[in-house]
Amino acid sequence: MTVSRTADPNVSKPARAAREPADAPEAEAGGIRMGELSELLGYSLKRAQLRVFDDFIRCMTSLNLTPAQFSVLLLIDRNPGRNQTEIASTLGILRPNFVAMLDGLEGRELCVRVRSANDRRSHILMLTDKGRTILARAKKLVATRHEARLNEVLGPANRAALLEMLATLARDF
Amino acid sequence: MTVSRTADPNVSKPARAAREPADAPEAEAGGIRMGELSELLGYSLKRAQLRVFDDFIRCMTSLNLTPAQFSVLLLIDRNPGRNQTEIASTLGILRPNFVAMLDGLEGRELCVRVRSANDRRSHILMLTDKGRTILARAKKLVATRHEARLNEVLGPANRAALLEMLATLARDF
Repeated sequence: MTVSRTADPNVSKPARAAREPADAPEAEAGGIRMGELSELLGYSLKRAQLRVFDDFIRCMTSLNLTPAQFSVLLLIDRNPGRNQTEIASTLGILRPNFVAMLDGLEGRELCVRVRSANDRRSHILMLTDKGRTILARAKKLVATRHEARLNEVLGPANRAALLEMLATLARDF
Repeated sequence: MTVSRTADPNVSKPARAAREPADAPEAEAGGIRMGELSELLGYSLKRAQLRVFDDFIRCMTSLNLTPAQFSVLLLIDRNPGRNQTEIASTLGILRPNFVAMLDGLEGRELCVRVRSANDRRSHILMLTDKGRTILARAKKLVATRHEARLNEVLGPANRAALLEMLATLARDF
């Protein structure tokens, strides 16, 4: 075992942890031994991602936007006139899920689907005025609450290094 | 905008990217402008996590284990005699999802649920011999294929730094 930290520093070790060599205490969470799990990058990514999304959703309570909805509004705003398929595939959202999400956003009058003049089977996405207003407010909340606190916890240099490594994984792995 | 790289270096920029100042090219993916998205830590975590899980699943094809199933087998093995609720809450898996997952693992004879002698409402989890064999093979596949390739892409020092930052997020954020 090469694990060198506990998952929760406030949790005291139960007696049987004493069987581990003193220089390599096994990571634990709530008295459960984590074994190889705490060294697994995929597991750590998932736990961190869930924590960050929870905070995002909390910061966005007043606007009632999920991380995925926020991403969609942002991309539509940044890419006016692009169609449904392009936005969905950029975000890696499956078609049925994306259609359901657009139904919700359109129902809240945040965006509209317009049939393309070039290709009648294709739908172009656009934000409404209300959508643009909500997106502007959402961006402000994300920056001042969510990202500001992430910066505080990680420090700006670590935050930049983390983004860099995540981009490497998404691009090269 | 402080974005400084494209999401896919093989994608050539369409002409309108020239409107961005030369020292701050906006990140793009397949010709879609990513806007603030490429600087959002939550979005980057999610994309990297999906990529890493995809590879994990691919490496595990012969054993047909998902990342969550692997985590469960690993924790049961490492914590014999612990009950269902403790394992589920450590992994942050909701009870109905966990019950469905155990049904699957028990159906494949990888683990068993035994009624606790102390508390008849509680179930203790244990691996079967087959479960232990499969877990040992899975650990070997994860180490030699999945984690070895992650090490290659990131480098050991970056991999350690990344794990450290993810642990900080999961613990302190």
